[in-house]
Amino acid sequence: MKINRQIILTSRPVGMASLSNFQMINQPISHPREGEVLSKTLYVSVDPYMRSRMDERPSYIEPFQLNEPINGGVIGEVVESNSPTFQAGEFVLGFSTWGDYFIASASKLEKISLPKHSLSLALGILGMPGMTAYFGLLDIGNPKPGETLVVTAAAGAVGSVVGQIGKIKGCHVIGIAGNDEKVRYLQQELGFDKALNYKDPKFVKNLKEATPQGVDVYFDNVGGPITDAIVSRINRHARIVICGQISMYNHEIDIGPRLFPQLLVKSALAKGFIVNEYEMNFPEARHQIAKWMEEGKLKYQESIIQGLENIPKAFIALFSGENQGKQIVKVE
Amino acid sequence: MKINRQIILTSRPVGMASLSNFQMINQPISHPREGEVLSKTLYVSVDPYMRSRMDERPSYIEPFQLNEPINGGVIGEVVESNSPTFQAGEFVLGFSTWGDYFIASASKLEKISLPKHSLSLALGILGMPGMTAYFGLLDIGNPKPGETLVVTAAAGAVGSVVGQIGKIKGCHVIGIAGNDEKVRYLQQELGFDKALNYKDPKFVKNLKEATPQGVDVYFDNVGGPITDAIVSRINRHARIVICGQISMYNHEIDIGPRLFPQLLVKSALAKGFIVNEYEMNFPEARHQIAKWMEEGKLKYQESIIQGLENIPKAFIALFSGENQGKQIVKVE
Repeated sequence: MKINRQIILTSRPVGMASLSNFQMINQPISHPREGEVLSKTLYVSVDPYMRSRMDERPSYIEPFQLNEPINGGVIGEVVESNSPTFQAGEFVLGFSTWGDYFIASASKLEKISLPKHSLSLALGILGMPGMTAYFGLLDIGNPKPGETLVVTAAAGAVGSVVGQIGKIKGCHVIGIAGNDEKVRYLQQELGFDKALNYKDPKFVKNLKEATPQGVDVYFDNVGGPITDAIVSRINRHARIVICGQISMYNHEIDIGPRLFPQLLVKSALAKGFIVNEYEMNFPEARHQIAKWMEEGKLKYQESIIQGLENIPKAFIALFSGENQGKQIVKVE
Repeated sequence: MKINRQIILTSRPVGMASLSNFQMINQPISHPREGEVLSKTLYVSVDPYMRSRMDERPSYIEPFQLNEPINGGVIGEVVESNSPTFQAGEFVLGFSTWGDYFIASASKLEKISLPKHSLSLALGILGMPGMTAYFGLLDIGNPKPGETLVVTAAAGAVGSVVGQIGKIKGCHVIGIAGNDEKVRYLQQELGFDKALNYKDPKFVKNLKEATPQGVDVYFDNVGGPITDAIVSRINRHARIVICGQISMYNHEIDIGPRLFPQLLVKSALAKGFIVNEYEMNFPEARHQIAKWMEEGKLKYQESIIQGLENIPKAFIALFSGENQGKQIVKVE
């Protein structure tokens, strides 16, 4: 039997998660049963939405169990298959535990057809964050040429794709981020028309100046006072894509100006979504995104941390505002 | 020349409007010019949205001008026409001043084909409030059989129609109103499954008990803490129709719990609208509503106050929670 190191949740964070909420344990791993596949973990995805699963209260997906391994998006290489669908040596995408190995039902795995050096894209721009950006922006945001699009957490895994697709669709794109390096990156490398640092004391004034025509589409990855400022700029028939609300993840104070009156006055729409609702259309979206990447219209950045034991650190870093692009952990 | 009494706005209300914000003046009225029509006012509509026009700040329609007559939905009988489209004695629906007479361009008037005793329906269930209920509920709310619909200001001109159309569409309908007589009326006369008095100290508990399956469609006529309570009950894929926000009209404190996190968690939609956006489809909606009334599926109540001089009083009464059904002023 192989030893399988796994990361478990030992206590529920209050506010920001800390390393003390996690522990690494050793467990044996058995052979796959009929219809199952044993894979060696290559990459693990850490994503902001996981914070809300660390709370006890139910959300759109069920809470993590205490003292059980945390699960999420993972990429593995099949080492032993008890299913005709997969063979040893193949690369698979799954939703499984943070550990050295994982066993999953073949029906819950997806074969990855990418070359080995770009496997991690399946957790990023061709995976959940990319799909989130694509469907949230195009289906709910419905951006039209000449419209103004604002996106928050714009240097992140979702936001950076949203803004670039906005440019492809002919929008005037404003990105909001939390430091000057990200602002530079968005403007100079990703081709955003303008990027703003929300920590600048003049942020509200800068936002107003950057959106002289108002805001038609707002892709909201953060909520809270930044969202308040952007909603105050919306145009008639604006669309607000509610994708992430940091305050929800970390239980910050959750009181603010009421926004429904502004939605009313502007005949505006706000809609929440989870990306799984679009699962049927993922192949089409992946194809389109890959095509844009080949054409050089869509750039992609990832930040890779090495080592299974560093997954909690990589997860916590998501909330410090330091990471840029998709945060991935390379397990081996 | 005829004397035309008119109601003007002499000062902008702070908070609730009061009689001192209005004045009645006498003005001469001239003959209609080419393409214009002079009508004698029969009925005037007073509606909550007018409160926001009394503020200086622009909203979806422009503010009333100080010391100018207030305008809104009116029904008149043509007394002198300078247009081939209209003849003296015909009944017309217009958007014009609160006064004994009004002159309007023929192109801005609509002929009313109702019998004289039911003319006022054109300002109520077959007019703006009825259209607001019909399109807001059916286009944004999209109610399905077996779903739970909650509507606030449920005994009002819009809410009473929303709830009854909800019943026609097979929903479980809960109405929220501000006194026990309205609660009785909604349950016993309009066939709502349940009505609740929001002034009851146990309102939040009662709401929870009345919505054991959660809330699928919320037609929001009020905003504020009542809306907060209802949004806390929404189901996945809920639709929130933002139709009115009393707090917006009267500048009440405008801070509350953030609702976007709940929209996110439930993949829910919230959308504001103004009824004019559906103008092209009004004839179809009027036809359907008239048919439901004939079939006895849709009941209608109006509260009629007599006398031009009482328009301000009738308007102010909209915000006291006393009126039931559509508030109309019969001028002559």
